[in-house]
Amino acid sequence: MVVTGVRRASAAEVEGLGRCGVATVHEAQNRSGLLDADLRPVWPGARMAGTAVTVSVPPGDNWMIHVAVEQATEGDVLVVAPTSPCGDGYFGELLATALQARGVRGLVIDAGCRDVAALAEMGFPVWSRRISAQGTVKQTLGNVNLPVVCGGRLVGPGDVVVADDDGVVVVERDRAASVLEAARRREEKEALSRERYAGGEISLDVSGMRAELAARGLTYVAETELA
Amino acid sequence: MVVTGVRRASAAEVEGLGRCGVATVHEAQNRSGLLDADLRPVWPGARMAGTAVTVSVPPGDNWMIHVAVEQATEGDVLVVAPTSPCGDGYFGELLATALQARGVRGLVIDAGCRDVAALAEMGFPVWSRRISAQGTVKQTLGNVNLPVVCGGRLVGPGDVVVADDDGVVVVERDRAASVLEAARRREEKEALSRERYAGGEISLDVSGMRAELAARGLTYVAETELA
Amino acid sequence: MVVTGVRRASAAEVEGLGRCGVATVHEAQNRSGLLDADLRPVWPGARMAGTAVTVSVPPGDNWMIHVAVEQATEGDVLVVAPTSPCGDGYFGELLATALQARGVRGLVIDAGCRDVAALAEMGFPVWSRRISAQGTVKQTLGNVNLPVVCGGRLVGPGDVVVADDDGVVVVERDRAASVLEAARRREEKEALSRERYAGGEISLDVSGMRAELAARGLTYVAETELA
Amino acid sequence: MVVTGVRRASAAEVEGLGRCGVATVHEAQNRSGLLDADLRPVWPGARMAGTAVTVSVPPGDNWMIHVAVEQATEGDVLVVAPTSPCGDGYFGELLATALQARGVRGLVIDAGCRDVAALAEMGFPVWSRRISAQGTVKQTLGNVNLPVVCGGRLVGPGDVVVADDDGVVVVERDRAASVLEAARRREEKEALSRERYAGGEISLDVSGMRAELAARGLTYVAETELA
Amino acid sequence: MVVTGVRRASAAEVEGLGRCGVATVHEAQNRSGLLDADLRPVWPGARMAGTAVTVSVPPGDNWMIHVAVEQATEGDVLVVAPTSPCGDGYFGELLATALQARGVRGLVIDAGCRDVAALAEMGFPVWSRRISAQGTVKQTLGNVNLPVVCGGRLVGPGDVVVADDDGVVVVERDRAASVLEAARRREEKEALSRERYAGGEISLDVSGMRAELAARGLTYVAETELA
Amino acid sequence: MVVTGVRRASAAEVEGLGRCGVATVHEAQNRSGLLDADLRPVWPGARMAGTAVTVSVPPGDNWMIHVAVEQATEGDVLVVAPTSPCGDGYFGELLATALQARGVRGLVIDAGCRDVAALAEMGFPVWSRRISAQGTVKQTLGNVNLPVVCGGRLVGPGDVVVADDDGVVVVERDRAASVLEAARRREEKEALSRERYAGGEISLDVSGMRAELAARGLTYVAETELA
Repeated sequence: MVVTGVRRASAAEVEGLGRCGVATVHEAQNRSGLLDADLRPVWPGARMAGTAVTVSVPPGDNWMIHVAVEQATEGDVLVVAPTSPCGDGYFGELLATALQARGVRGLVIDAGCRDVAALAEMGFPVWSRRISAQGTVKQTLGNVNLPVVCGGRLVGPGDVVVADDDGVVVVERDRAASVLEAARRREEKEALSRERYAGGEISLDVSGMRAELAARGLTYVAETELA
Repeated sequence: MVVTGVRRASAAEVEGLGRCGVATVHEAQNRSGLLDADLRPVWPGARMAGTAVTVSVPPGDNWMIHVAVEQATEGDVLVVAPTSPCGDGYFGELLATALQARGVRGLVIDAGCRDVAALAEMGFPVWSRRISAQGTVKQTLGNVNLPVVCGGRLVGPGDVVVADDDGVVVVERDRAASVLEAARRREEKEALSRERYAGGEISLDVSGMRAELAARGLTYVAETELA
Repeated sequence: MVVTGVRRASAAEVEGLGRCGVATVHEAQNRSGLLDADLRPVWPGARMAGTAVTVSVPPGDNWMIHVAVEQATEGDVLVVAPTSPCGDGYFGELLATALQARGVRGLVIDAGCRDVAALAEMGFPVWSRRISAQGTVKQTLGNVNLPVVCGGRLVGPGDVVVADDDGVVVVERDRAASVLEAARRREEKEALSRERYAGGEISLDVSGMRAELAARGLTYVAETELA
Repeated sequence: MVVTGVRRASAAEVEGLGRCGVATVHEAQNRSGLLDADLRPVWPGARMAGTAVTVSVPPGDNWMIHVAVEQATEGDVLVVAPTSPCGDGYFGELLATALQARGVRGLVIDAGCRDVAALAEMGFPVWSRRISAQGTVKQTLGNVNLPVVCGGRLVGPGDVVVADDDGVVVVERDRAASVLEAARRREEKEALSRERYAGGEISLDVSGMRAELAARGLTYVAETELA
Repeated sequence: MVVTGVRRASAAEVEGLGRCGVATVHEAQNRSGLLDADLRPVWPGARMAGTAVTVSVPPGDNWMIHVAVEQATEGDVLVVAPTSPCGDGYFGELLATALQARGVRGLVIDAGCRDVAALAEMGFPVWSRRISAQGTVKQTLGNVNLPVVCGGRLVGPGDVVVADDDGVVVVERDRAASVLEAARRREEKEALSRERYAGGEISLDVSGMRAELAARGLTYVAETELA
Repeated sequence: MVVTGVRRASAAEVEGLGRCGVATVHEAQNRSGLLDADLRPVWPGARMAGTAVTVSVPPGDNWMIHVAVEQATEGDVLVVAPTSPCGDGYFGELLATALQARGVRGLVIDAGCRDVAALAEMGFPVWSRRISAQGTVKQTLGNVNLPVVCGGRLVGPGDVVVADDDGVVVVERDRAASVLEAARRREEKEALSRERYAGGEISLDVSGMRAELAARGLTYVAETELA
């Protein structure tokens, strides 16, 4: 089944969350929404944010990715999950060419990817579980734009996907505005801490941890007294 | 045992297949011949093609690689497989220096490799299962130029090995010519598709998939009709 | 518990061992001291040497790293091990800023790390088991500067830690001088071999292996005689 | 947060699905709903079916399982997922004693379990990713009876969980009746096939595959004609 | 392609090798022929020997196993390898019923298996990489009775396959007689050692290792002299 | 090097700790001392306690285990760790026969084991990382009775090793008495809890957790109020 006319988070929300980066967005929604850390960028320095077009595919069969291309538009990212674990190379340069021509920002796939040198050259970012030249067939149907579990997290169509060198995080489309606000507050707070740390202060003082540590029973002993 | 005087695929075949790259060669021989995707380049951007000198080594013992150096010549690549799983660093800068001096193109090893910074600087490409500084001993014999299973595939002496960022593929020496021809045909076809995709067409139309998808029962439903 | 006033290997020993690199130091102490090869640099080309400040942390809790910052000083490296396996992102840019301000050389962590793009930009080197944006809490105590098992090896406070693209090796503080001497002898020997290999000689001759190989029964057979 | 008063699939649905077993239920809902095959029974021969009480826990912290015990009642099973990957032993004999006293059927946990000898003796079934004696703390809150991703699949409170030696499958509470009906039809069909196979017939004839295989180009060649 | 009329090792060879067991057969052919140790029996105590019918299958597609049933006869075992890594449950009770009716001894599969409780009850032995209820489709062709790489080793049609709790070993059909003879010699020798060890002697004396150990420099130091 | 005359924990300490079991001993020493949970018993129901004879072995070489047999005596267990990761079958029935004749209680090995059917029949317990028939050579020396890191933890000669279905825990020889006392106190406390849980009480009341949970902000919401 293919679901059309999917409502998406707004471009402003996507752009704002993308600027904050994965670690900050993840913290801003109470340390949730991260995909499995085994999904890694296929070329270093990749970074993207977009709205999810979700795709469910059989093992070793990429037919539905071709179907999904048509559903994807400016500002989207494809999020692809196989119905059982598979590391085959579902995606390569030709599909990336088609997606890039439509303004699609990138791909997250809980499986394999190939043509990674070409993808790097094109600047088309992909996060995958594996890099593998193993090709796939086109024989069995799946779904587009139904919710999928990708990298151990539920991703719905239209949700915001942010990805960088630290991994991939997803924000539900209806929570995008509030998460963005929390992420910005966090960034401001961190900027202050960074400045103080760079000046030589440490978190025990900056965050006032000493009393709590002592209350929990932390003790300091000189090495010469240990023996 | 060391087998000498091995017949090899021709330099023209090797050069042609190397130019096509791993994904194309793998497709051109009906999606076969790929080594396990866990064999990865130890430095990014590496790319090579050559004829296999196969080496079977005990776990933690690299003596036979030293023996194999003498059997390797201009245009060869070493293909090394341990007799039981081992991630030790069998290979480093010194062996690479000796091989490079003989015109050897690179190494594929179903085990560990070390000195990777030096290998990158020398431009000597290696695909390995692991990077590990763990050294090996020189105490037990193995074989050179008998067929080995490396990365889950059979590799024979003189076979063509092509490797790049997508992985490693092997072509039997007697099939090299026919696979090269099929790979070239595939490249031409892909060039046409790439052009059309870049122009905004999609595979549902370029490859005429719509009828078949409909026949299999693919349906399109608007999100607003789902609830 | 936090142990203070830790005796450390000397700056000269650290500097010398760091110059030799991981593979050479590991060989120089009889192929021992290597941490698990799954601990990898989070950015390529990273290289460091320093004296260990050891930290034991609960799963998903980085409080003791904050405590350890205060114990670390010019020339140190943090060595962090969780009490049970955990891949969460214990460490990021802010802690790195605080450590860099104190002259700390880098981090080895048998767990996860995040903000890797920022760490690369700052030039702060980290070897970790995983890259993960998953944040941690600050609720449970651990230890600083007691010996820890990190990457399968025992690391004591004040020990020398050398890390590069090949992995991480540790040298006990009381053996640093003798290992450094052995490492330098090894480097000299390797320099000679490198020159001869570059000139086309091979190890069978350079290291005189032919007699021993023959004694063990190595035989050479032409391929045409095999069938 | 703890959600109370959860609507559950009916006892008759649970009992019927449990009798069909995991493989049949999975097929009956179009090969969906299986949890990751790395979740294995901690003692052989375990088998259960029940309605899910879902629990989300921090890494290395089992406090919320204690909270969940109170929410579980006759015919339920606990489904526990950590917020980041963790193999610690969250669950053992004492919690099993409390659950068994309440009529709870068993546990599915995407983490570690301990006291497995005692659990086997008690006949309390557990499917876990790991067996580990590693204890956990009680310091951080999580959720009970909100949907969780466990073993890569979404599980909602009140859903039917069926588990046996083949793994774990989940059926949404609102689809339980229709899946049960499909599972029973499948069982009847398989009983007929089993009888014919036991009598020496094979699937090529029983399922009439020969024509389709021939149409796809399957060829038979005698070994003596191959060379 | 399906190859018919395959020449097989003799029943006497198979029976003799099966009696020796995996570890002994592996040693008898110079520590070779073992499949990857991750292929484990799906029920404990399973043990079998037979001649290989080899099957190559696409990921997630078990059609060719159905084709292979017809090629298998009394004394055979199926050896199944996917063309790319896949853990799906290709095989279950119904196929086992059909094979058992034909006198087939068991299955080795470098993928997943299901219905393991039923297989244990039937006494049909299976060695697989995984247990998974995940079903497969029947849409793509593969090969029967061409050589396959299964568990990292080459297996040819008609080869002898021996499997028990220690794993799986394969013996080429043309080497079966000589390997059997070597295995029997080894068994006799081990019986003598076993008797001496049970009587309290140790291998340092039984196998005369002391002189060689001393020559290599083994030293004995009392613990009290260490500090 | 072989260290002789090793001081061991007392038989009474070993027997007492063994009776408590792995999970309790691990808790009694503040959740420390557990070996990696990937070390599993090779046959179910195995259980043992003894004093460690530690052995360091090269990859794929079991010579030092033969040397260690002579150092082991009534009440000991062998603890074997390879110098680099290796899953080969270092240990089998013949070595077990020699050890059993000397009153040795069992083996913990951070590598592979074979002849597991015979070991089960003999009642000789083994915890290993892998089961593999892959044989090893006898060519390189290692150490006996120096401290080793096994399963990620430091084990010294004479330390107490307790192992059961939950894994393996080690107690330093000088802490055995105090850990035993703490373990017994814990057992008494758990017996009381078990009785109350079996009677239908739950830990929220038995351990008085409700106030603390409320203080942290735990809230209860009816499912019908969620939407």
